Amino acid sequence: MSASSPLTVPDDSPFGVHNLPYGVFTTADRPEQRRIGVAIGDHVLDAGAAARSVGALAEPGFATLEAPSLNPLLAAGRPVWTAVRAAITRWLTDEALRAAVEPCLVPRADVTLHLPFEVADYVDFYASEHHATNLGRIFRPGSEPLTPNWKHLPIGYHGRSGTIVVSGTPITRPSGQRKAPADPVPDFGPSRRLDIEAELGFVVGTPTELGSPVALADAAEHVFGVCLVNDWSARDLQAWEYVPLGPFLGKSFATSVSPWIVPLDALAQARTTPPERDVEPLPYLDDRDAAAEPSGFDIAFEVRLNGHVVSRPPFAAMYWTYAQMLAHMTANGASLRTGDLFASGTISGPERETRGALIELTWNGQEPLKLADGSERTFLDDGDEVVITATAPGPNGTRLGFGEVAGRIVPRPTT
Amino acid sequence: MSASSPLTVPDDSPFGVHNLPYGVFTTADRPEQRRIGVAIGDHVLDAGAAARSVGALAEPGFATLEAPSLNPLLAAGRPVWTAVRAAITRWLTDEALRAAVEPCLVPRADVTLHLPFEVADYVDFYASEHHATNLGRIFRPGSEPLTPNWKHLPIGYHGRSGTIVVSGTPITRPSGQRKAPADPVPDFGPSRRLDIEAELGFVVGTPTELGSPVALADAAEHVFGVCLVNDWSARDLQAWEYVPLGPFLGKSFATSVSPWIVPLDALAQARTTPPERDVEPLPYLDDRDAAAEPSGFDIAFEVRLNGHVVSRPPFAAMYWTYAQMLAHMTANGASLRTGDLFASGTISGPERETRGALIELTWNGQEPLKLADGSERTFLDDGDEVVITATAPGPNGTRLGFGEVAGRIVPRPTT
Repeated sequence: MSASSPLTVPDDSPFGVHNLPYGVFTTADRPEQRRIGVAIGDHVLDAGAAARSVGALAEPGFATLEAPSLNPLLAAGRPVWTAVRAAITRWLTDEALRAAVEPCLVPRADVTLHLPFEVADYVDFYASEHHATNLGRIFRPGSEPLTPNWKHLPIGYHGRSGTIVVSGTPITRPSGQRKAPADPVPDFGPSRRLDIEAELGFVVGTPTELGSPVALADAAEHVFGVCLVNDWSARDLQAWEYVPLGPFLGKSFATSVSPWIVPLDALAQARTTPPERDVEPLPYLDDRDAAAEPSGFDIAFEVRLNGHVVSRPPFAAMYWTYAQMLAHMTANGASLRTGDLFASGTISGPERETRGALIELTWNGQEPLKLADGSERTFLDDGDEVVITATAPGPNGTRLGFGEVAGRIVPRPTT
Repeated sequence: MSASSPLTVPDDSPFGVHNLPYGVFTTADRPEQRRIGVAIGDHVLDAGAAARSVGALAEPGFATLEAPSLNPLLAAGRPVWTAVRAAITRWLTDEALRAAVEPCLVPRADVTLHLPFEVADYVDFYASEHHATNLGRIFRPGSEPLTPNWKHLPIGYHGRSGTIVVSGTPITRPSGQRKAPADPVPDFGPSRRLDIEAELGFVVGTPTELGSPVALADAAEHVFGVCLVNDWSARDLQAWEYVPLGPFLGKSFATSVSPWIVPLDALAQARTTPPERDVEPLPYLDDRDAAAEPSGFDIAFEVRLNGHVVSRPPFAAMYWTYAQMLAHMTANGASLRTGDLFASGTISGPERETRGALIELTWNGQEPLKLADGSERTFLDDGDEVVITATAPGPNGTRLGFGEVAGRIVPRPTT
């Protein structure tokens, strides 16, 4: 294999051999045929074709690689996830196997990426203490910024699965009821306070039966991997509607996700201990066992607005972990389905420049952001493009990439 | 056809020829084969077999009757719904056709009924002014009972689709965090305040594209039919968790639905004008056009606890209509998928004995219900069975039935 082989991936590639995220792609010559791909360097490995090429399709669970979405692989469970990941690693590193799978590579620039799995239920959490504190200060000035329940349970709510879209999908500015506190009645029109929320999403693979809570220690048996999430939010719609039953139309118009699902197994070096629990957790949420693998992740996010970095939210600062979110979400007996997606909520760190939403970065619009091009923003203008990326430590000093979740705001057509 | 034909259905049957609700059933001899059935009298018509028997399968859309769930029929759209309903009516009333479909009848007592469609997104509204007022008085004493937004928009939130179960499924008492106002910290254990919510659910058939709101006048193009819903609620979990992002684990453990979907077309005689709008609705919610078909429904509910009627909630008293709920839910451009379910929220009338939840019937447990067997209830005990039924006016003085949504509370197993 020569140094010019597409499989000779430089160490600083976000998609090196230690990452191997899964997605679903099509190519221009077969636009109807969705295929599972694995990102490697600047290429995508057609995973089903590769499995066929090396004669692996008969191995248990490997036929899921020929599906048009990740759901069958997600449903196959951790033993299959581990076996498939180990096999793909071999295909990409063993000299003889590399020759067999090289014809199954497609340049990444030549593929169209799709929503990689069919989303079952979507839950959005509120797991950043800094974000929750900032929003409490903005929305409920004069009260304690954190509600009394905040440190006892990971607050969450169900979002709309049907409007989850893949990165790159244009985001139409939503209309809705807008009412500032001083207005006597609401009016209806395009949101004037369109915002982002930079989040990490967790993709459920192995389902559970109704009545079977998932213990903290079992979280990794059910979670296949992670993606980046932009939970677009119309703050004016949200502020007017959300009491008493929570966010609805302020969120349900669109939620964007990155096309690559990074396996949990790729994040071994990124695991980190979450912040100190300064309120005693109930036993089902108590993760203070120093011997257990920590469930925090040291993932460094970047948020770009029209190309300018406006924030660098640190996932390591999140108070609640994905394992606690999953344990809480199922503590009442609620079942999981393959394809369930739960997201962290906005990732905000302690400093202003690490806040993951414009409402915090601009303090509810009172302190506009100055972009490097000289323009100012409070909330999003039509035409604005938001791109969220992230990296995490991999083995041997490498850094893993997550791809990106991008979206451009388009005005609502006047009909 | 003799008077003893199973198709000679008495006028007072809840499942007469003017109703024709759809469900999905299996029989003991073919337990794996889910089939679409139409309730008629004491029987179920195997709709796919009947279509085959009369040679109708080639008609546009009729092949959907051979599917194992209602989703393909739901997706086929109103022209197909109308044609299929007209055809089934003919099969059941025309002498020659009756002979052809009679072999496709199964006694209703011999079938097992299943969840009739795959639920996409589930939204629960809060459309009863009486219910919202009662809960405001109970949860926020001293404040205005209705939040300022209540008469401007139908408040709603997303629920968990994956835990929607068919009538008859046992309901395991959920555990969760419980904290009375006087407790310093929450504890974890089985809910002590397990409640019901008697609701009407609306099943979406025709989907929409992202960015395409549904106008009030188009609601019937998208809604296939209705079912009964019991939105089980753990009030102690809910009260502690719901600020600021709304209900989550207090609801997500189970939501029961009736197995029969009554077509919107069967409810023509039940349509009624909703209550006066005492706040001017925004144009997209304004249904005060006297020339338009009204979107309220005169459906009389009954709630039985262990066989005793404890409430008779009147759906006609609901402030917000299904058309307003749908217009609002899509006003921000959110798309609809086939199988979306949206429910009305608890149906409560103005009088105590018409309230659709125990928290209202017992005023938060302060005024226990006395059952006819001499026992008392505040919230549900283990072993309690709740059965919700409803009827609506049909043609010629008949009344349509909706079947029932039933569930019995079982204790959480101690593991």
